[in-house]
Amino acid sequence: MNAVHRAVPWTAVRLEGGFWGRWQETLRTATLSAEYCQLEETGRLDAIRLTWKPGAPNEPHIFWDSDIAKWAEAASYALALWPDPMLEAQVEEIIDLYAAAQWPDGYLNTHFTLVEPEKRWTNLRDQHELYCAGHLFEFAVAHYRATGRTKMLEVARRYADHIAATFGRGEGQKRGYPGHEEIELALVKLYRATGERRYLDLAQYFIEERGQKPHYFDLEAIARGEDPARYWAGGHDYTQSHLPIREQREAVGHAVRAMYLYSGVADLVAETGDEGLYEVLQALWESATRRRMYITGGIGSSAVGERFSYDYDLPNDTAYAETCAAIGLALWAHRLLKIERRGEYGDILERALYNGILSGISLDGTRFFYANPLEVHPGDYLLRPYMRGWSSYRIERQEWFTCACCPPNIARLLASLGEYVYSQTESEVAVHLYAPSRAFVTLHGVPVTLTQETDYPWDGTIRLTVSPKEPVLFGVALRIPGWCREASLRVNGQVVPIERGGDYARIARTWREGDTLLLELAMPIERVEAHPSVRHDNGRVALQRGPIVYCLEEADNGPALAALALPRQAPLTARPAPDLLGGIVLVEGEGVRRDMTTWKGALYRPVETPLVPAPIRAIPYYAWANRGIGEMMVWVREG
Amino acid sequence: MNAVHRAVPWTAVRLEGGFWGRWQETLRTATLSAEYCQLEETGRLDAIRLTWKPGAPNEPHIFWDSDIAKWAEAASYALALWPDPMLEAQVEEIIDLYAAAQWPDGYLNTHFTLVEPEKRWTNLRDQHELYCAGHLFEFAVAHYRATGRTKMLEVARRYADHIAATFGRGEGQKRGYPGHEEIELALVKLYRATGERRYLDLAQYFIEERGQKPHYFDLEAIARGEDPARYWAGGHDYTQSHLPIREQREAVGHAVRAMYLYSGVADLVAETGDEGLYEVLQALWESATRRRMYITGGIGSSAVGERFSYDYDLPNDTAYAETCAAIGLALWAHRLLKIERRGEYGDILERALYNGILSGISLDGTRFFYANPLEVHPGDYLLRPYMRGWSSYRIERQEWFTCACCPPNIARLLASLGEYVYSQTESEVAVHLYAPSRAFVTLHGVPVTLTQETDYPWDGTIRLTVSPKEPVLFGVALRIPGWCREASLRVNGQVVPIERGGDYARIARTWREGDTLLLELAMPIERVEAHPSVRHDNGRVALQRGPIVYCLEEADNGPALAALALPRQAPLTARPAPDLLGGIVLVEGEGVRRDMTTWKGALYRPVETPLVPAPIRAIPYYAWANRGIGEMMVWVREG
Repeated sequence: MNAVHRAVPWTAVRLEGGFWGRWQETLRTATLSAEYCQLEETGRLDAIRLTWKPGAPNEPHIFWDSDIAKWAEAASYALALWPDPMLEAQVEEIIDLYAAAQWPDGYLNTHFTLVEPEKRWTNLRDQHELYCAGHLFEFAVAHYRATGRTKMLEVARRYADHIAATFGRGEGQKRGYPGHEEIELALVKLYRATGERRYLDLAQYFIEERGQKPHYFDLEAIARGEDPARYWAGGHDYTQSHLPIREQREAVGHAVRAMYLYSGVADLVAETGDEGLYEVLQALWESATRRRMYITGGIGSSAVGERFSYDYDLPNDTAYAETCAAIGLALWAHRLLKIERRGEYGDILERALYNGILSGISLDGTRFFYANPLEVHPGDYLLRPYMRGWSSYRIERQEWFTCACCPPNIARLLASLGEYVYSQTESEVAVHLYAPSRAFVTLHGVPVTLTQETDYPWDGTIRLTVSPKEPVLFGVALRIPGWCREASLRVNGQVVPIERGGDYARIARTWREGDTLLLELAMPIERVEAHPSVRHDNGRVALQRGPIVYCLEEADNGPALAALALPRQAPLTARPAPDLLGGIVLVEGEGVRRDMTTWKGALYRPVETPLVPAPIRAIPYYAWANRGIGEMMVWVREG
Repeated sequence: MNAVHRAVPWTAVRLEGGFWGRWQETLRTATLSAEYCQLEETGRLDAIRLTWKPGAPNEPHIFWDSDIAKWAEAASYALALWPDPMLEAQVEEIIDLYAAAQWPDGYLNTHFTLVEPEKRWTNLRDQHELYCAGHLFEFAVAHYRATGRTKMLEVARRYADHIAATFGRGEGQKRGYPGHEEIELALVKLYRATGERRYLDLAQYFIEERGQKPHYFDLEAIARGEDPARYWAGGHDYTQSHLPIREQREAVGHAVRAMYLYSGVADLVAETGDEGLYEVLQALWESATRRRMYITGGIGSSAVGERFSYDYDLPNDTAYAETCAAIGLALWAHRLLKIERRGEYGDILERALYNGILSGISLDGTRFFYANPLEVHPGDYLLRPYMRGWSSYRIERQEWFTCACCPPNIARLLASLGEYVYSQTESEVAVHLYAPSRAFVTLHGVPVTLTQETDYPWDGTIRLTVSPKEPVLFGVALRIPGWCREASLRVNGQVVPIERGGDYARIARTWREGDTLLLELAMPIERVEAHPSVRHDNGRVALQRGPIVYCLEEADNGPALAALALPRQAPLTARPAPDLLGGIVLVEGEGVRRDMTTWKGALYRPVETPLVPAPIRAIPYYAWANRGIGEMMVWVREG
């Protein structure tokens, strides 16, 4: 491990226009209010108003506190960036309600308060109490950082203290830990916001106790009068508690849970420098990203269980690839980048952001995908009987879900995206993402303004202006993306060498006001192939340009996409389409199509079908399903 | 419609060695006894002994009478072909038990007798009473034809009379019909065996009443206190009762039910000459076989609901393609062939028999597939969590099933297979299947012996000796299979022309003892393609030689079959392998494989993987999964 970086916080980075700036604008003007309406309409806010009575509709659900907290966390980030009295009032009401709903002992959970208070802490495996607590803590920290006000932070601290008193290895304490991880990383945030070491210790306890024998979830099930062998999820791998963390090497189980756990472990490593745990994380990283990840950064290929499957099992049409899991991957990658400035971490962060996460939200910011398949035939969802249960969740974005984790999760990620752009030590600032922005950092005690100008991801030219208040020596490390095969760099107009194969181009010098770095990343259209063991992708290519993975939609290419093929030698061109789908770059080329007109009612026959020319037009994957229902495919047949 | 043919009955056709003769030998020596043991061990026979008591294990299930009846039907065919005192005693015991279990009013169903007698005829939609009755009738007719004894036939007649009194359009009758069709075709058999017209009338009533408004299943649900809108199967298309039969044009719903209904309708058409109903059948035939059928003759692609999906939706890996559904397709095709001697019907009969049906039974005759996927990766079933429910049913044949329809169904089909070889009118005999056999027919009153010698399906040469007792004029029609592009025919050594495009080569002449027909069907290996709308098969070919569809197995080709490809121009050779898999012809050729050795831990990268030569060996699809668990695929990538 090299020197641990810290993120340059979202409060110090402004995304100014460009790709992400426009997404933040959509968030501010559409997403936050649309989601608030859903919280209100679905009874979630009534739940924390404690107005719900047994027998009434909209019984408060075990997830609801997390839905509210994630929205309020997103709103808190937004408040710091774009003052908004109405939004502020909404957040303050939520804080007041939570403060009022907190029990004298610090406990705070609306489901258990209103629906089954006698069952507090009796089913950590399934009931999401500690998960909801984690999201309340994250909200509290975000609100504190955004406003400096401590009311919610105090609520969180009281609750965290209650949890610390309840769980642990001391006498009379429960040796439990969450069934859905999340509180671990939240406790590290709480520790960093308050300086209270006991929150870090509690995070460490939850991480290390997980999966120890006798298994807490079994003991707990027995105490409830249940047979642990009849656990609905099959085994404890579902919650990553099949083994103690130090013995884990494969990314398994529910993908979101896994990502939140690994993120918490990464936070712990950043705080403790524990090399053994970092080795565990590296093995888990290889398992997750080199054998179990879609090209979009989607993870958790199995819909049943929302979970990881086995190595190279990445079916495109039944892909689950939950939006929250891709977000979790970004959270984890971001944390790993702070432990070690390794290009691979930044590459996957970028891959998830531009593809498997962003596909989860409509261009207008008000509709959401929970699952993100890489190939869709509407017939599967509309007509094939056994798919009907999954309904249109997979072909049309929805305004909300019964289990509504993804919409507010994508909101809080977009709102806090500034934090993902840079990280720093005392003597180095690293640029992980390219986006027009201004950042304010301090190096060796000298305030430095960093200004990025770029049309990334559509263009590979990035101009970074480095303006220290006074001349100061430090390093600037620019990520050379893994997809880029040709990069050049100039400092104040002079070409400087980039170490070949280097993940980051690092320039250490005494920087003076107005110094500029010009990074040029060649961004041709690439045909990408998958490992031959990914059986669903053999004989197919995905089109990628820069960090953007492309897909074919029926809207551009007509139906029966599977009858299309793209010859290896067919030239492909990139064409800006500023008026299409919010402004994109199209990829176009001349493909071929098996000629259907010669068939005349046959279903099988000796091979003879001629190929006819067929123009192929691809759009960014994230932008699919914004023009009505139709077929879509990422992996295009070659031939 | 041309003159209606009648089958040359199984009692008049002996399969002597060769492909099907060996399968019948396996049936006789292994399958029948293995299945009888299952009937005994699983409590099915105890059920008809009426020894089961409420609360005891093995509660008699609504399907059990049909399991026993189908086995006993198979055993009855066998008894006529190969006398066997023990088998005979087993069948006679079953008859005695059914005679004893019959109610005074003729009713006969062990589940409703033992478990819920008060619920007789209250849920025709779901409870399979009329379905079980149909199988009892089929058994009774088979036993009567095999032995001339009438005890079971009398049981069946009393039950049929009870059903005729219970159901119909008369006062006090229920206007019901079966949720699972079967009794229709069984009643036509009973009519033909007894000459009692009322059984044909009852079959016609069941067929014509189906789907009339108000819907009987809705009325019945309401009478049970249920909401018909909450029908578990979704809609009445599941039971083909969404429309009256004369308005149906698409093969829908549960595939076995559909096949049994359409077979019953074909029987009705054969008896009545109803041209309107025949037009319906032709539309349903096109729907089922030209848009909704696997190349194996498997139908019903959707596992949930065991049902037809939508046009061209034929996924290979999740294919259900129940063995019973392919058997049903053969039953239907066989009946259509009697209405009209059209090659297409014979082709599909043959396709189902050699592929999608025969894959349902192990080479040793004692293990069975219920589902018959066209592509298998064991990881899907062993490792992918959401497939675990389907367990190994799809990768390893099983000894038996809770719902055990397929094993005895394949037994009765194999036992009665002689009946599928020929059909006749007074002046013509048609040969539909090629198999070494002797048949005894009468044409214009003259007994004629037909002797076939052939190594079909491995070789396309068929010698048919026609030996009438005295010279007699009639036509012999030989099916020219749809897969055959070059056929030649000699009569007593003299070449005779075959009408080009003709489905059957017909030779009308005065036949004399020892006249020979020599049919030679060119049988090269064909690369077959699927309609471009079958999206799962684009860019792939299936290998077929004669009627046999081939597949690749891991046992011959190593793992990662999807990484293999077969160039269009690669020569393929057929090689007899008499000691492999019961004696087959292998198909071999030189393919290519994406080279996995160059990957070194990457999951995606710009295209560069070299292709390395890889020998490809294909075996008949029906013989797969006889050498342990492994990958299998029918549709091989081209390239």
